[in-house]
Amino acid sequence: MLRIPYQELHQRLAAALRSLGFTGDRALLCARLFAETTLDGVYTHGVSRFPRFVRMIRAGRIDVHAVPELLRGHGALERWDGRCGPGNLNAWCCMDRALALARRDGVGAVALANTTHWMRGGTYGWQAAGAGFIGICWTNTLPNLPPWGSDQPRLGNNPLVLAVPRPPAHVVLDMAMSQFSYGALAGYRERGETLPVDGGFDATGRMTRDPAAIEASQRPLPVGYWKGSGLALVLDLIAATLSGGLATHQIPNDPERETGISQVFLAFDPTTLGPAEAASQIADAIVASAGSRYPGERAVQLRAENLALGVPVDPAVWREVQEISG
Amino acid sequence: MLRIPYQELHQRLAAALRSLGFTGDRALLCARLFAETTLDGVYTHGVSRFPRFVRMIRAGRIDVHAVPELLRGHGALERWDGRCGPGNLNAWCCMDRALALARRDGVGAVALANTTHWMRGGTYGWQAAGAGFIGICWTNTLPNLPPWGSDQPRLGNNPLVLAVPRPPAHVVLDMAMSQFSYGALAGYRERGETLPVDGGFDATGRMTRDPAAIEASQRPLPVGYWKGSGLALVLDLIAATLSGGLATHQIPNDPERETGISQVFLAFDPTTLGPAEAASQIADAIVASAGSRYPGERAVQLRAENLALGVPVDPAVWREVQEISG
Repeated sequence: MLRIPYQELHQRLAAALRSLGFTGDRALLCARLFAETTLDGVYTHGVSRFPRFVRMIRAGRIDVHAVPELLRGHGALERWDGRCGPGNLNAWCCMDRALALARRDGVGAVALANTTHWMRGGTYGWQAAGAGFIGICWTNTLPNLPPWGSDQPRLGNNPLVLAVPRPPAHVVLDMAMSQFSYGALAGYRERGETLPVDGGFDATGRMTRDPAAIEASQRPLPVGYWKGSGLALVLDLIAATLSGGLATHQIPNDPERETGISQVFLAFDPTTLGPAEAASQIADAIVASAGSRYPGERAVQLRAENLALGVPVDPAVWREVQEISG
Repeated sequence: MLRIPYQELHQRLAAALRSLGFTGDRALLCARLFAETTLDGVYTHGVSRFPRFVRMIRAGRIDVHAVPELLRGHGALERWDGRCGPGNLNAWCCMDRALALARRDGVGAVALANTTHWMRGGTYGWQAAGAGFIGICWTNTLPNLPPWGSDQPRLGNNPLVLAVPRPPAHVVLDMAMSQFSYGALAGYRERGETLPVDGGFDATGRMTRDPAAIEASQRPLPVGYWKGSGLALVLDLIAATLSGGLATHQIPNDPERETGISQVFLAFDPTTLGPAEAASQIADAIVASAGSRYPGERAVQLRAENLALGVPVDPAVWREVQEISG
C-alpha cells in the first residue's frame, strides 16, 4: 500500500472526477466522501471502489450530472428520485434533506428511489452525528444473501446505519445483514486467515470459517441466522414501499449494473427536546458503562493514524486515479 | 397446557385486572394485549408473564392508574413520561400517538421514558401495520447481555420491532439482540433439545449449544456477535437520549424490579406518498421473491389454530388468573 497524504488524495480524486464531468462543488464533495472513507479505515468501501465507479460512469449507468428530485412530500416525510446519479452524492443530499426536516419538525424521513451504490453507509451516519442529529439510514442492494434455510441469494445484505452524536467521538454503527461482507471475506482470504466465527456455507452446505469456500459458494450467513434474514427482508420492504422504487429482487445481480437502489434516511434533532449537553452526557455514560469497543471508535483511531501517516491506497488504484486526473 | 377459548381468556384476564384496580377500557385493552400475544403463539411473552405483572403491581412497582404524560414536543417528535404505568398500555398509547403524528406529518416519533415492561414488542408492530402504517419501535431492558468480548451483562437485549402493512398478513419482525431469549433457552431445555446454533458461552467460556449451560453462565450471544452487541448499544443510546430516561446500565438487574425503561416508537404513513394498494403489491412481490418464511407468518398460522382449538395456557397460571378474577 502507498501512503498518500489526505489532501493530495482528495485533490487528485476531485481532479479525476472533474475530468469525468463532475462540476465544482460536486467534484469536491464526491472526492471527499471517497477519500474520507479510506481515511477512516473502511478500505473496502472507499478509494478501492473508485475504479468500478469510473467504469459505471463510462458505461452510462451513473449519470454524473443527475441530482435528486422531490417527487412527493407530506409534512416531514418525502419521496425523492435519485435519477441514477452518483450514489454518494445522492445519499448525502437526502440525509441533508432529512436533517433539514428534522430541524423544522423534530424528525425527518426521506425515501430515495432509483439511486446507485452509496459506497460506505456509515458516511451518512457521520454526516448526521456531525451536525448534532441522530441518524438512521439503510439501503437495499442487489441479491447477494440467501435467506436462512435457502441456498439462493434472494435477499440483499442491506447495510443499516445508526448514528448518535457524541462530540468529538460520535457513535456510528454501520452493519450489513451478512455476518461478513464479501470485502471482509476477501480480506481474510488474502491474509491467509480463517474467520473468527462461522461465516457461511461451503459448496457442500456445511457451515464454515473458510472465507474462500464462502466466496465460492456465494452463501454467506445472515447476521444471527434467521434474525438477520428477517431484518434484511423488512429493510428492503420499507425502502421499496416508502420510496416507490425497486426491491432487491428487481436489481440486477451484477455489481457493475447495480442501479435502481432504494434507500431510507431518518434524522432526529435531540436539541428540540433538551440541551445537547444532556444527551451527550447520557451517551458518554452509556458508552463507558458498556466497557467495550463502541461502533465508530476504530474509525476515530484510524482517521488520526492515517492523517498522520498518509492514507493507505492500493498502487494500481492510485495509478488509475492519476491517469484519469491527468 | 389447557386450551382456553380466546373470549373466555380475554374476559377472565379483564376481570382479574379490574380486581387489581384497572378501570373500564384499560382493563379490556390490557387483557387483550396479554391474551393476543399467547393467541399468536408468543408463549414466552403473553399470559405466562401475567403472574409477574401482578406481583409488580402488588409491590407498587407498576401503577395501574398511571397514564403517559407529554413532557415536550416539537413538530412530529415528542417525549413522554410513562410514570411507571402498565408497560403494554403505555406502549400502545405511544405507538397510537406516533400513528396520529404520522397521519398528520407523514412520520411520527415518540420517545417514552420511565415505563415498565411492554411484554411482546411485536404487539406494537401489529398495531401499526393493522392501522396501515409502517411501524418501528424498540425498548431498552435491564442488563442481561454481555457485550461481545466481555463476560459481564452490561447491555440489554433491547428488542427491536419493524412492521410493514400487507393486509391481511402483515410482516412483523420482533427480534431481541440476543440470539436466543432466556424464554427460548428455557423452552429448549424443557424439551430436552440442544440449540440449532451456538447460543452463548458455558461457565468455562466455550461457545455452546447447551441451553442450560447458557442459563447458568448468563452469557447469551449477541445476534451476529459484535454486530448485535453494537446494535444493542446504539438502540439504548437513542432510546435514552431521545426520551431523557434511563439507560440499560441504570435499570436494576432484577426482572421483578425492571422499571424506568426507555422506548422509541416510529410510524410512517405510506398512504401520504401513494396508494396503499401500490405499497401492498410491492410488499407482496418482495415476500414472494424471498421464497422463505417471512416474519409474522407463524403468528398468523398459530392465531388461526389457537382461535379454533383454544389458547394454550399453563394450568398454574390459569388457576391464578381465576383466583384473582374471583
